Amino acid sequence: MIQQYPSQLLEKAVGEFAKLPGVGRKTAMRLVLHLLKQEKSAVESFGNAITTLKREVKYCKVCHNISDTETCLICDNPNRDASTVCVVESIRDVMAIEATQQFRGLYHVLGGVISPMDGIGPSDLEIASLVERVKTGDVKEVILALSPNMEGDTTNFFIFRKLAPFDVKMSVIARGISIGDELEYTDEVTLGRSIVNRTVFTGNM
Amino acid sequence: MIQQYPSQLLEKAVGEFAKLPGVGRKTAMRLVLHLLKQEKSAVESFGNAITTLKREVKYCKVCHNISDTETCLICDNPNRDASTVCVVESIRDVMAIEATQQFRGLYHVLGGVISPMDGIGPSDLEIASLVERVKTGDVKEVILALSPNMEGDTTNFFIFRKLAPFDVKMSVIARGISIGDELEYTDEVTLGRSIVNRTVFTGNM
Repeated sequence: MIQQYPSQLLEKAVGEFAKLPGVGRKTAMRLVLHLLKQEKSAVESFGNAITTLKREVKYCKVCHNISDTETCLICDNPNRDASTVCVVESIRDVMAIEATQQFRGLYHVLGGVISPMDGIGPSDLEIASLVERVKTGDVKEVILALSPNMEGDTTNFFIFRKLAPFDVKMSVIARGISIGDELEYTDEVTLGRSIVNRTVFTGNM
Repeated sequence: MIQQYPSQLLEKAVGEFAKLPGVGRKTAMRLVLHLLKQEKSAVESFGNAITTLKREVKYCKVCHNISDTETCLICDNPNRDASTVCVVESIRDVMAIEATQQFRGLYHVLGGVISPMDGIGPSDLEIASLVERVKTGDVKEVILALSPNMEGDTTNFFIFRKLAPFDVKMSVIARGISIGDELEYTDEVTLGRSIVNRTVFTGNM
């Protein structure tokens, strides 16, 4: 269907929304017209929330989780077990594990997984900083909590090799979650159990 | 799932996205993290497109379609037939009809339909301005092109009563079975109407 936009401002806004993943031009149009019906202040608030986030967002200098402060609330919490570090792909995974309330250690957010298909290599991820954290000797256990798919397994193995020289126990979350599933969509009981029942990582899959 | 946000800026942005129709907190999170991965300029451009649209958008003073100018491109076009006015609910309907390239007249955007359940009465819609347009005498035909449901029918009838005193032909878009639909799966009301309102078969489709 050829859609001729009656306004270039409208077309621009729809175009911006349509760039979002999973949002087509019809949905974008619906969202923009919804915003147009809202109060001016509500729309300003929407626009500002996005640009302010991008401008002012910080990442924890220890675990690279998103944070409003230099080090995040989890790393700053003296009640958390600093000797256990859970390695995850993204911020969403931190939130998913936190929601299970089964883990009292700290995190390390890689910012992705090794994926040659997408041109993401180890140097694009926070792996060197993980090695530095382990080098200090405070970390007794590293829990690998990446999604159980090829990229996750590859990354697990790469980290395993990198940390092999150090005196650190390595474990991987229990494969109670079905192979091929995405970590963030796993229900919290399964996800919680898979952390409690983590097994020693031997390098064999 | 209790989600504790690691950043208030993040929580605010997710909250704003989650206000959009059909967007839950998980989808909102996915969209926000997608934006966070983009270049700063792309995110500014996204935020600005929305706020600029809301701040600078105009509505055509004739047909109330969205427009960048005082009167819209359709109303300004001398090749359009100004004696035929098609009454629609929203801007999206204008775009849908324009996309068919079957209509050369002008539009009148009501901005909604009469819906007592949602507290929308005739005075909330652009009905008085439609009556004014017809009063000038230039309009020879008003085509009612609202959705065929209770609210649309109520609004059609209200407009019909309001325009009754004027010398203007009133028509309603044909209601029948959709092109490509299977007859046996068509609901009985539509099928019944399409039989009652059958048209002369000329051999041309």
